Amino acid sequence: MTKAIGYAAQHSYSRLKPISFERDDPKANEVEIEVLFCGVCHSDIHQVKNEWSNTVYPCMPGHEIVGRVTRAGTGVSRHAVGDLVGVGCMIDSCRECEPCHAHEENYCEGPNSWLATYNGPMVPAKMSPDGSNMYGRDNTYGGYSSSVVVPEDFVLKIPASLKPEVAAPILCAGVTTYSPMTHWGVKAGDKVGIVGFGGLGDMAAKIAKAMGAEVTLFTTTAEKLDEAQRLGVTVVLQSDKKTMTSLANSFDFMLSTIPEKHDVNPFVQMLKRDCTLAVVGAIEPLASENNQERVMHRKSVAGSLIGSIAETQAVLDLCAEHGIGPDIQVIPIQEINKAYKHVEKGEVRFRYVIDMASLKQDEEAA
Amino acid sequence: MTKAIGYAAQHSYSRLKPISFERDDPKANEVEIEVLFCGVCHSDIHQVKNEWSNTVYPCMPGHEIVGRVTRAGTGVSRHAVGDLVGVGCMIDSCRECEPCHAHEENYCEGPNSWLATYNGPMVPAKMSPDGSNMYGRDNTYGGYSSSVVVPEDFVLKIPASLKPEVAAPILCAGVTTYSPMTHWGVKAGDKVGIVGFGGLGDMAAKIAKAMGAEVTLFTTTAEKLDEAQRLGVTVVLQSDKKTMTSLANSFDFMLSTIPEKHDVNPFVQMLKRDCTLAVVGAIEPLASENNQERVMHRKSVAGSLIGSIAETQAVLDLCAEHGIGPDIQVIPIQEINKAYKHVEKGEVRFRYVIDMASLKQDEEAA
Repeated sequence: MTKAIGYAAQHSYSRLKPISFERDDPKANEVEIEVLFCGVCHSDIHQVKNEWSNTVYPCMPGHEIVGRVTRAGTGVSRHAVGDLVGVGCMIDSCRECEPCHAHEENYCEGPNSWLATYNGPMVPAKMSPDGSNMYGRDNTYGGYSSSVVVPEDFVLKIPASLKPEVAAPILCAGVTTYSPMTHWGVKAGDKVGIVGFGGLGDMAAKIAKAMGAEVTLFTTTAEKLDEAQRLGVTVVLQSDKKTMTSLANSFDFMLSTIPEKHDVNPFVQMLKRDCTLAVVGAIEPLASENNQERVMHRKSVAGSLIGSIAETQAVLDLCAEHGIGPDIQVIPIQEINKAYKHVEKGEVRFRYVIDMASLKQDEEAA
Repeated sequence: MTKAIGYAAQHSYSRLKPISFERDDPKANEVEIEVLFCGVCHSDIHQVKNEWSNTVYPCMPGHEIVGRVTRAGTGVSRHAVGDLVGVGCMIDSCRECEPCHAHEENYCEGPNSWLATYNGPMVPAKMSPDGSNMYGRDNTYGGYSSSVVVPEDFVLKIPASLKPEVAAPILCAGVTTYSPMTHWGVKAGDKVGIVGFGGLGDMAAKIAKAMGAEVTLFTTTAEKLDEAQRLGVTVVLQSDKKTMTSLANSFDFMLSTIPEKHDVNPFVQMLKRDCTLAVVGAIEPLASENNQERVMHRKSVAGSLIGSIAETQAVLDLCAEHGIGPDIQVIPIQEINKAYKHVEKGEVRFRYVIDMASLKQDEEAA
């Protein structure tokens, strides 16, 4: 056991506050990682506030982790002490189901599905049909902490050319947008529409552009227009009905990154025949979808959940190769509650990344 | 010009009544067909009542037509006078767009899209971006009539082993369910769920079974259970929540044939990873879809619109080969308004087919 410290919420309406706890020592196949930076994902807020009705408290978020390996189990071969590494949304999976064998651990169909970096397995024991508890734990503590311990297979290599604080959001925001674009075959020359210009939309636009697509970004926020245009993509304000209408049947793929209930009908209308809108931001009921739009040109609306470990490595490497990454603002962890408020208002167009060195002052106070 | 007679509605709340009109003589590439039987499709009722806000009056429905060729244009090579032939939902398309070149005329992207067998082009001149009127007509009269005139490419061959009255509904209900099953790759051994047991559901279940799938049929109507079981498929009553829940993540493909607003969430839940629910019955806004269901296993909800001419011929041939067809009740056209009421109540589990010989008594009266 090793002493650790991290920021956690004790209940659905509490602020995040420092708590002391203990991390297990790394097993033979695990590495211990000193957390250097951790991105702030909109889903952290949903989880802290129990908006998906599945939060286990204390809730210590953080699944965009970049850090340095401090200890490695005896069987570890992929990573060495001192390596700069990353951990995304998953730290384990059943490794036995068909998706796991297909290297799509993010769709693990084991009795508890995959083990989330925080808040425990995706299917907790009490939700599992036969009460399975294969990971032996119902809560996990994420990267808003001094250290994490993770099986080496779920640890990513951070390319040398990526700044560690910039790499952090790629581990969730990056792969969540990269995975569906890969799955639905986005290729050079394709017209790709990205809906929403927050943390995910920013990454999605940059990644689609790096893949050679012609990118159009849709935003509801006039104040974000200049920033979006700086990405070198076409930007459309959703209130511009004339432009919106003119884009009917013109996109090969669309990705909605909006993290709450919204109306996808205007975007389904913009898809070409046989093409797909993947909705990755909203994990909840959406506004009513008019099936007429889907019927007329055999269009699909689909979901997609983060991405696999292989895709996470691939998107890190793609970002390094193309010199792209999220626009970030580094904050000390003591500002996390204030940062949450900004994210909730949807005003920020960058990704907050916590500099975990700031935890030291809480350690000293503890 | 040839004198004709048919049943038409004059406005959205009128009953269908006989009217006399004139059919053009067949052009070089067209055949004239004496209508023997015409199926009654739920969409006929939607159209008559202007429920899609696009009805042109007088509205003479009928797009499940089986008849005999009475005249053939000089350039016609596919059909000869005396042949038993069929006409489905389309009688022409632009023949120049990418879908038309790909033999998917049902997704024609010409300025007026395809020419519907009744109610004119799918995109009427006033809705076309540039006011196009490529077919030169804004209304077409369907198969509730003594004769139709149709380009030979849009005329199907009725296999000798199919009774003409049984073949009629295959031209719409059959191909509308066959096309998505083919498109999404239903194959022998697949688990296929069919939602709704009306005219489309009946055909869908039989066709899926003929394709070698393991079929489960979902109905809300306890009175239909016996009939459904007679098809040799598994039948589930939607109110049986325990069975419904036990079917999570178990189907390779699902097809919803319900012809009105409904909740697809229970069926999305039943799809396996990466699989699709195609909704073909409801051409309108559906109940709110919970994107969580789509996200967790990368599932899709799609639309599909009837089927191509090639698919229509294929499903006619498939039905002939397997000796399957719709359960029908033949009625004289004088009973059409009563039949509509039965269909609207959703009580009938067979397809009404009009014996057009009954028109004679109106001709004599006219």
